[in-house]
Amino acid sequence: MGKENKIPKITLVGAGPGDPELLTLKGFKALQNADVVLYDALVGEELLKFINPEATKVYVGKRSGEHSYSQEAVNRLMVDYALNFGHVVRLKGGDPFVFGRGYEELDFALAQGIAVTIIPGISSAIGVPGLQQIPVTHRGLSESFWVITGTTASGEVSKDIYDAAQSKATVVVLMGLKKLSAIVAIFKQAGKSDLPVAIIEKGSTKGEKLLVGNVSTIVERAKEIAIGAPAILIFGEVVSLHPAYQSISHAYASITGK
Amino acid sequence: MGKENKIPKITLVGAGPGDPELLTLKGFKALQNADVVLYDALVGEELLKFINPEATKVYVGKRSGEHSYSQEAVNRLMVDYALNFGHVVRLKGGDPFVFGRGYEELDFALAQGIAVTIIPGISSAIGVPGLQQIPVTHRGLSESFWVITGTTASGEVSKDIYDAAQSKATVVVLMGLKKLSAIVAIFKQAGKSDLPVAIIEKGSTKGEKLLVGNVSTIVERAKEIAIGAPAILIFGEVVSLHPAYQSISHAYASITGK
Repeated sequence: MGKENKIPKITLVGAGPGDPELLTLKGFKALQNADVVLYDALVGEELLKFINPEATKVYVGKRSGEHSYSQEAVNRLMVDYALNFGHVVRLKGGDPFVFGRGYEELDFALAQGIAVTIIPGISSAIGVPGLQQIPVTHRGLSESFWVITGTTASGEVSKDIYDAAQSKATVVVLMGLKKLSAIVAIFKQAGKSDLPVAIIEKGSTKGEKLLVGNVSTIVERAKEIAIGAPAILIFGEVVSLHPAYQSISHAYASITGK
Repeated sequence: MGKENKIPKITLVGAGPGDPELLTLKGFKALQNADVVLYDALVGEELLKFINPEATKVYVGKRSGEHSYSQEAVNRLMVDYALNFGHVVRLKGGDPFVFGRGYEELDFALAQGIAVTIIPGISSAIGVPGLQQIPVTHRGLSESFWVITGTTASGEVSKDIYDAAQSKATVVVLMGLKKLSAIVAIFKQAGKSDLPVAIIEKGSTKGEKLLVGNVSTIVERAKEIAIGAPAILIFGEVVSLHPAYQSISHAYASITGK
């Protein structure tokens, strides 16, 4: 198909947390109809098999030690491919608008006069605890959940975490593992040393790892089992519903004679 | 297929916000493999066409004026169907663990010794603003989002809304339209009269309606255009990115000579 027949358009698709089958039917159709797919490091290899075999696949992710594309370069590539080849699917881990800088891509494309469609994805903030049977809300334990990035543009811990640690919400921190000690210190200062915490690495994939503990124990335990990124942190009473938490709290109760 | 061949099991599936194609591939497969599907009022009719034609479809939702099932009755039905017919899919609007009482269903089934699998769904909290190209997070405007129920078990506005109104998070309220005046009053008291607000009714479906305004104007505007449930409320600077907001703020600026 020559480019003369192609109307440039861009579809921002949320790929979900990792398991390829957590893609939506609509996202699947977009991959089948793509001329070009730009994808991230957070998008699992298995998902790429859903792409139209005639489409060009372009990796624009950031992995440590590799050349990484700037946001500006990704924006530009996306638009250039659309102008030259037609339908570009921009496939992003999770949901496009949950800390994915998706709006910057949308905004750039619209400013160039290119139509953009959004296809939401399962955010790991909700889906990953859910797969572990940890509900972000539960009557009697949590009437809300607050999702925060652990990695802000400035490199500092988000100020929102200070407020969140004071709140009664279930607090979910994405991209926060490197800042775990600093984040935990904020919860301690808020008097939440006993609050249950879970860390889930590579949720929804074969490499999934779960760690549970309390604000006062989680940093030590994370070192012991060498949990790594990508991971999400969940602070809240809802974590106490998990069988792994119940077994450690029984162990703790027997040690301390409670 | 006789029931003697069937191992009882339950799959809790998030149906997403309404558009049937926002179901996940995994959710679709579960519907194809179901012996019985229990579904809610929030699940669109169009989604039911994905169900295995030999499966029994059971409506257990609550619509005003109709007989409604208690949570206990739903739990009991779900387990009884699994024991008698095998694979029960419990199809819930949005994500099963976002204010859906999904954990109560999971807990009841596990206590009866029945295996339960969770398949997350697109929560309207993220997906519905996203489809309107309103990002729940955006660099420079929001480092977090806080999702709260407008309808608590007690019938009161959630206390978390008082804290949320003080925070810098994008605040998304589900099932809050009936409490709109009370919720808006809380934001006013927090000094947020100019904060942009959006209300999205029936997001992702053909009946979708969007209303934008400020904390100080939204109640009046919601009356004017007669917006109805189900709807989500979004409070935050991110709403100002929407073209509809930009046009009203220009209109306002020209009226006031700003």
